[in-house]
Amino acid sequence: MRQITVEALDDIARGAAVLGTGGGGDPYIGKLMAQGALRRRGNVDLLDPMELDDDDLVVPTAMMGAPTVMVEKIPSGEEIVSAFKALEKYLGRPVRATMSCEAGGLNSTTPFTVAAELGIPLVDADMMGRAFPELQMATPTLSGVTATPMAIADEKGNSAVITTVSNRWTESLARTLTIDMGCSAMIAIYPMTGKQVKETCVLHTITLLERIGITIREARQRHEDPIAAVIGATNGYVIWRGKVGDIARRTESGFARGEAVIAGVDAFDGRELRVAFQNEFLVARAGYEVLATTPDLITMLDDETGEPITTEGLRYGFRVAVLSMPCDPRWRTPEGLQVVGPGYFGYDIPFVPIEQRVRERTA
Amino acid sequence: MRQITVEALDDIARGAAVLGTGGGGDPYIGKLMAQGALRRRGNVDLLDPMELDDDDLVVPTAMMGAPTVMVEKIPSGEEIVSAFKALEKYLGRPVRATMSCEAGGLNSTTPFTVAAELGIPLVDADMMGRAFPELQMATPTLSGVTATPMAIADEKGNSAVITTVSNRWTESLARTLTIDMGCSAMIAIYPMTGKQVKETCVLHTITLLERIGITIREARQRHEDPIAAVIGATNGYVIWRGKVGDIARRTESGFARGEAVIAGVDAFDGRELRVAFQNEFLVARAGYEVLATTPDLITMLDDETGEPITTEGLRYGFRVAVLSMPCDPRWRTPEGLQVVGPGYFGYDIPFVPIEQRVRERTA
Repeated sequence: MRQITVEALDDIARGAAVLGTGGGGDPYIGKLMAQGALRRRGNVDLLDPMELDDDDLVVPTAMMGAPTVMVEKIPSGEEIVSAFKALEKYLGRPVRATMSCEAGGLNSTTPFTVAAELGIPLVDADMMGRAFPELQMATPTLSGVTATPMAIADEKGNSAVITTVSNRWTESLARTLTIDMGCSAMIAIYPMTGKQVKETCVLHTITLLERIGITIREARQRHEDPIAAVIGATNGYVIWRGKVGDIARRTESGFARGEAVIAGVDAFDGRELRVAFQNEFLVARAGYEVLATTPDLITMLDDETGEPITTEGLRYGFRVAVLSMPCDPRWRTPEGLQVVGPGYFGYDIPFVPIEQRVRERTA
Repeated sequence: MRQITVEALDDIARGAAVLGTGGGGDPYIGKLMAQGALRRRGNVDLLDPMELDDDDLVVPTAMMGAPTVMVEKIPSGEEIVSAFKALEKYLGRPVRATMSCEAGGLNSTTPFTVAAELGIPLVDADMMGRAFPELQMATPTLSGVTATPMAIADEKGNSAVITTVSNRWTESLARTLTIDMGCSAMIAIYPMTGKQVKETCVLHTITLLERIGITIREARQRHEDPIAAVIGATNGYVIWRGKVGDIARRTESGFARGEAVIAGVDAFDGRELRVAFQNEFLVARAGYEVLATTPDLITMLDDETGEPITTEGLRYGFRVAVLSMPCDPRWRTPEGLQVVGPGYFGYDIPFVPIEQRVRERTA
């Protein structure tokens, strides 16, 4: 167990934007919320998952909704704990710690607010190792852990505790309620035992986020290449360098969907990269050539500063480096690909690990 | 306390179709379900609300959804008690009795199935004194009773317990879930104390339904006019007699909406009545003349047999008598009209009590 300070959240949020792969909500908002909570309530204890007892109860928390709306509806401290409290009441036993649902975007830092408000630790782990747009897209799903009972609450005081027959149904009912609640809500989901956390989650990802954030900050201070620093910290690859052109965006069924075109520069001159997103970047193609796909990570960094860019932050003319990094190995199994592979999102593209795609391109 | 038998349900369901004002779901379906349950489990005790202790817990139950869909998805005994059980578990104390949400249509008899399956009594009362399409349209709402915590469950095994800041929000979130669950779900709602039931509900309406049903049956057996019999049992008025012409129907946002045209016969010859419905008949107009509006009851009976006709049962060429009856006086207050008056449903028509409309027409 170690303490996370207001300052450490700057690094964590920067790392969260990298693993957020363009989505997961603006980490800047999550950071401001969490820093406010830490200033009011004190530092948050980061609990190594290996310190959990097997029968400890852990309840991950998150914001749910369209990132485009979430940034306009920032919940207060009271509101942010309402879903957690509703679920704890329903479960009828005290919860030892909260956790991040996704180690990317807004929701990597949202649970710090919950932890600070309630004075409980945050587990150093998450359920994706990145950000994904739907609730069933969590490594515990692959091991048969149920997402429910889960609680959902809005800023007005409405809440619901849902129990479903599958994690896909959890997503469906919670999404529907989120839209009705104004396209943004707080959730408490996947109540798990300490044993389940240790066996089914992606471990030590908060520490990884911090390390990525520190790497970028230090590279800037030393006037070194921040892109190279991120590559080093994430086992990633630069798959494109270019200038942002057209961006098509729509908010649809509670998601931010669209496509960004990146005109190539340097080695990529004269070609165009098309990056499709549904909250997160999912597929990167140059003409007929596929450069990277979900579940591997695709992320965009400002080519100068190394600052990660979300789909909402993308603007015409930005100079960017597009990176791809290997995902958690569980996502690459047939079961994992069924849940988060290109086919699930409607792309008729086989999944090929990024290491292999890079090897074949450079061969 | 008296016992309701399989045979008595025939009369109750016929009465429920009269007060169902064309909607509330097909009472025939509710009756078949309830009769099946009574045959398996035995008769149901009908509890006079005055026999309730002030702190008894009562939980009304109902089916929610588009009547057009509900008739295709008849829940089994297990399914029909799932919402009730989810709410009882959430409340953490035993429920003394169930109750009907509406004394009209399917949902006047649905709770008999719940009562029979669980071996608990049914309170002789309801929350509308008729059928209405939305959850907040209940007399307890007018006295500040909250509809939540409420439970909703589908036939697949999904369920949710909802807590809201207003009964209008309860309707919104439960409707949204119902649509997601396939346009039909079971609900347990408005948990109340015995005191609240006695003070805020419409009392003895199951007995009223039975009396209306008996009246129609006996009039037929004695070859008397069944329409006159219904008028006698309900303080109603015949506002139209005619032949059903065009019917426009659509299932929209989980409701059955539309309008029926009734060509006048006898005294009404040469004119047309237009009856608009949203699950229930809401407004009856002949040209610019308004003959009756919600919250007073508008119902259609087969002109020969006195058999009530639902909006789904309406067919071209049917000979019908259109009746209107006074609603519970609480609906006629300014607070009541805000919840169920013509304006709420989008009709720019003042509410005038049916007695007064009839008096003015015949003056």
